[in-house]
Amino acid sequence: MQIKLKAGEHLDDLCRNGLRIIQSEHLFRFGMDAVLLSGFAQVKEDGLALDLGTGTGIIPILLSAKTPGRHFTGLEISAASADMAARSVALNDLTERIDIIKGDIREADALFAPASFDTITSNPPYLQGSHGLLNPDLEKAAARHEILCTLEDVVRAAGRLLVPGGHFYMVHRPFRLAEIVRVLPQYHLEPKRMRLVYPSIDKEPNMVLIEAVRGGRPRMTVEKPLVVYDRPGVYSREITEIYGY
Amino acid sequence: MQIKLKAGEHLDDLCRNGLRIIQSEHLFRFGMDAVLLSGFAQVKEDGLALDLGTGTGIIPILLSAKTPGRHFTGLEISAASADMAARSVALNDLTERIDIIKGDIREADALFAPASFDTITSNPPYLQGSHGLLNPDLEKAAARHEILCTLEDVVRAAGRLLVPGGHFYMVHRPFRLAEIVRVLPQYHLEPKRMRLVYPSIDKEPNMVLIEAVRGGRPRMTVEKPLVVYDRPGVYSREITEIYGY
Repeated sequence: MQIKLKAGEHLDDLCRNGLRIIQSEHLFRFGMDAVLLSGFAQVKEDGLALDLGTGTGIIPILLSAKTPGRHFTGLEISAASADMAARSVALNDLTERIDIIKGDIREADALFAPASFDTITSNPPYLQGSHGLLNPDLEKAAARHEILCTLEDVVRAAGRLLVPGGHFYMVHRPFRLAEIVRVLPQYHLEPKRMRLVYPSIDKEPNMVLIEAVRGGRPRMTVEKPLVVYDRPGVYSREITEIYGY
Repeated sequence: MQIKLKAGEHLDDLCRNGLRIIQSEHLFRFGMDAVLLSGFAQVKEDGLALDLGTGTGIIPILLSAKTPGRHFTGLEISAASADMAARSVALNDLTERIDIIKGDIREADALFAPASFDTITSNPPYLQGSHGLLNPDLEKAAARHEILCTLEDVVRAAGRLLVPGGHFYMVHRPFRLAEIVRVLPQYHLEPKRMRLVYPSIDKEPNMVLIEAVRGGRPRMTVEKPLVVYDRPGVYSREITEIYGY
């Protein structure tokens, strides 16, 4: 399918099933965190999945290739990102399996029926008001900083929209881990599986992957470390497998 | 100093400052977890430290060698273990720096004044009622199972006995992590530092080391992995350093 690119936009190859994605110099570009989350998350056969704050649409696009889920929805507040994500979906002939919806996570209740998804994913903004520099470009800043939605907004939406026993997958920064573990059960989500991502085996982890189950009981599996680099510049075998090189 | 050993008791070398410890075939013997906790915990110059459920006394004995703390107290409910720990203290000529007190963690309030320690450590029982087999020997079972005290009992005692800004160090099993992170702030303890212990780099972690600060603010550092074996049967350099070989 022919898709018009706007000024500042590029087509990037996702190295999987011939998938490509549009990214813009002017908008937030996806990072390794989104790719790792798409490798960590599971969508069951015929399952319905929702990605909260989908940005470029990277997570539903990758999950449509990696899982047997039936349908994927990406919710995105930025009109420019939502438009670009929708064009990436069309570009990959995925309009029957993926919907991109422009809307606010804080108003997800009005957009979707309660308990209407089997799997919810999110790669939310990591930083609170006072941490890090604010990006002068508000759309990029909102992808990194909790300007338009907080951790609790994301978890609240996930808790309301998941079916009982449904799965919520999130990638975040380890320094927020205590808060994450406390806010999840406030919305009936119990953390059941966690994996820390270490840049290399002698470094502090810079990402945490969390799986929570709606209505689950407290008992968590912490998985083996996910190490990004075996040595400087050389990805570990697991990272190359997740990326699909 | 000459110390009488009872039937079934052995003297073990701690490979540090000539320290030795008495262990008994009939009682719970310390594991790598206690040694790793003594490497993770810090006691400041002139600080006062308390170990909740000290067993053989391994943690105060090691901390007396590894830290500049002034005085260390070990609280132990088993009369047989407390007696053995006290003889290990005497054996090492440490009676001026270490007290072993026979008593119940659940009654720590009656034994110590509030806010009277700078550092509190604990290697508590890990398992809840229904997990794992109960040891037929009750004293050994109580060291592994939450028969005589629960996670919450330990955390409650630590919260009451620490000075504001004081540090609580605990080793536990990763599957209890969510509960740990939730129960700590109920007693004014905020997790600030965490390290996962992986048997080897391709395995799930089997221990978690946690540092919490009384009255701290939520923001946690997750440290680089602590890997026990570089290859089968060969300890990593860090483990040999902690053990003092």
